[in-house]
Amino acid sequence: VKRAPAYPRVGVAIGDPAGIGPEIVLKAAASQRVTRAARLVIIGDARWLERQAKRLKLRWPLQRRTVELVDLANVEPHCVAGSVSAGAGRAAVETIERATELALSGGVDAIATAPIHKEAIAAAGYVDAGHTEMLQRLTGAKQVGMLFWSKSFSVGLLTRHLALREALRAVRANRIVQAVRLFDAGWRQLLGKTPRIAVAGLNPHASEGGRFGHEEQREIAPAIERLQQLGLSVSGPYPPDSIFNRAQAGEFDLVLALYHDQGTIPIKLVCGYDAVNITVGLPFVRTSPDHGTAMEIAGKGIASGRGMEQAILAAARFARRQRSS
Amino acid sequence: VKRAPAYPRVGVAIGDPAGIGPEIVLKAAASQRVTRAARLVIIGDARWLERQAKRLKLRWPLQRRTVELVDLANVEPHCVAGSVSAGAGRAAVETIERATELALSGGVDAIATAPIHKEAIAAAGYVDAGHTEMLQRLTGAKQVGMLFWSKSFSVGLLTRHLALREALRAVRANRIVQAVRLFDAGWRQLLGKTPRIAVAGLNPHASEGGRFGHEEQREIAPAIERLQQLGLSVSGPYPPDSIFNRAQAGEFDLVLALYHDQGTIPIKLVCGYDAVNITVGLPFVRTSPDHGTAMEIAGKGIASGRGMEQAILAAARFARRQRSS
Repeated sequence: VKRAPAYPRVGVAIGDPAGIGPEIVLKAAASQRVTRAARLVIIGDARWLERQAKRLKLRWPLQRRTVELVDLANVEPHCVAGSVSAGAGRAAVETIERATELALSGGVDAIATAPIHKEAIAAAGYVDAGHTEMLQRLTGAKQVGMLFWSKSFSVGLLTRHLALREALRAVRANRIVQAVRLFDAGWRQLLGKTPRIAVAGLNPHASEGGRFGHEEQREIAPAIERLQQLGLSVSGPYPPDSIFNRAQAGEFDLVLALYHDQGTIPIKLVCGYDAVNITVGLPFVRTSPDHGTAMEIAGKGIASGRGMEQAILAAARFARRQRSS
Repeated sequence: VKRAPAYPRVGVAIGDPAGIGPEIVLKAAASQRVTRAARLVIIGDARWLERQAKRLKLRWPLQRRTVELVDLANVEPHCVAGSVSAGAGRAAVETIERATELALSGGVDAIATAPIHKEAIAAAGYVDAGHTEMLQRLTGAKQVGMLFWSKSFSVGLLTRHLALREALRAVRANRIVQAVRLFDAGWRQLLGKTPRIAVAGLNPHASEGGRFGHEEQREIAPAIERLQQLGLSVSGPYPPDSIFNRAQAGEFDLVLALYHDQGTIPIKLVCGYDAVNITVGLPFVRTSPDHGTAMEIAGKGIASGRGMEQAILAAARFARRQRSS
């Protein structure tokens, strides 16, 4: 079999076995676009995957030439698709732990992870708020950031799952400088180019020079100035309700959003399932689809594999670039 | 000339003469789609309009059969396109005052207003934050609301130009009840139908049952319950970063956004210039395009008349409905 020299191995964690993870991973593994771009190393329970595949009439066995399976044999016999449980939560975390080990040891070049369920992992006794925090803990990374990447535009978040009231308190010059440096470095590593970064304002119309709020003048503008002195391609603060249109038109590569919904509202509206969630700051490439476990449709065969496919393709693309550089 | 019985008269205020208002009003007045839908009553300075028309090679004189002109003769001789001034601010406010008088006296059936410039009206000594507040003052309306209407979906704002920090303090059950009732009544008046209203949450994922913030449980959910008891078609609070996708897919007519950018980011991204800004709570229909004076391109002939056209067409449509009801 002839392969491009930089044909990457992508570890694919199936996430919560009771969610749509197994289904969308199987669908992605059957996609030619995916298997032409990467060799998949699927991490999950083989018997459970086989059961799902047969039930949903998806390809089984997997094609050995392009798909490998790391069988954790960790799904409890009484696990039910669509049902949140501690057992499924534990099994989900184990897929991420193994994926991380493989990525750190060089067994895979990048990882793409299917969704986990927050209540399930909490019931299993894990304290992590989500994937991002768990990966930070497992790798000991100092600082991690959530980046939504799409062909239209990309968004980095200053804060993630915080009450808006608390997110406002995090709008500080130091944190903005840190976050932009992190996304800038992550982008250059992933794409080999310097991103043109726009920083959104916090207040309506970016406060119109202080008329509605002072964060733009006191925190955001000083942070941008410092970043420019460091040589980064950064500007702003821009009125939040037009900066995403400008990014979409191609003026910027990445918008720093100052709170969760400021970034996730536009990315979901423009990109739907096509945005890929990337964790920057880790010692390896990690992607995931921009949706959850969708318990209400798990096991029904109607979940779209598109988001997972995009996540794997992005992981393969970034891993190829890192290998060749 | 034969006309439909409900051929409405729409008062069109040119707004700040130094902005793009005169240009976009002249462009809209030359549009057959517009002149087939309404008789326009343009309110502004005739000499200034003529000068702009000749300079930009737009139709002049206006077609008398479909366009009437109320000449305020109020633009100072030294007024310059693109330049913010107290004189232009005063002239702009006078166009709105006259449009309001005409609407209140029945001289026109609805009004559509071109943009004004906040610094210019402040320099002219007016205290109003914008059009909406000015119209509230001129009509003595108790409560007014800002609604962005489009064919895709519509958004009502709980608060307008407030620092985000202060907007958070306004997320109170009573205010939400008031606002939803106002938008519901306004919608029924404009469109003759009961709107299906979705209330957005405030925090990421609508707080996931209180994990990130408490406003959903303490303020928003109780407000929705009260509104449902009043018989309104209202539900929520929904995760802010997927409710606009659902509205776009047709599940809801109107989303109540709890702060300015929560509503304006999605509407501008999806609708561009096609969203029409409507003031609800006034004794007459008032619309405007969803953009500003664009001083940097004023007088250059490159402004798009599309937003103004949409605003006039919407005003005509709503006025026709009110006449026929």
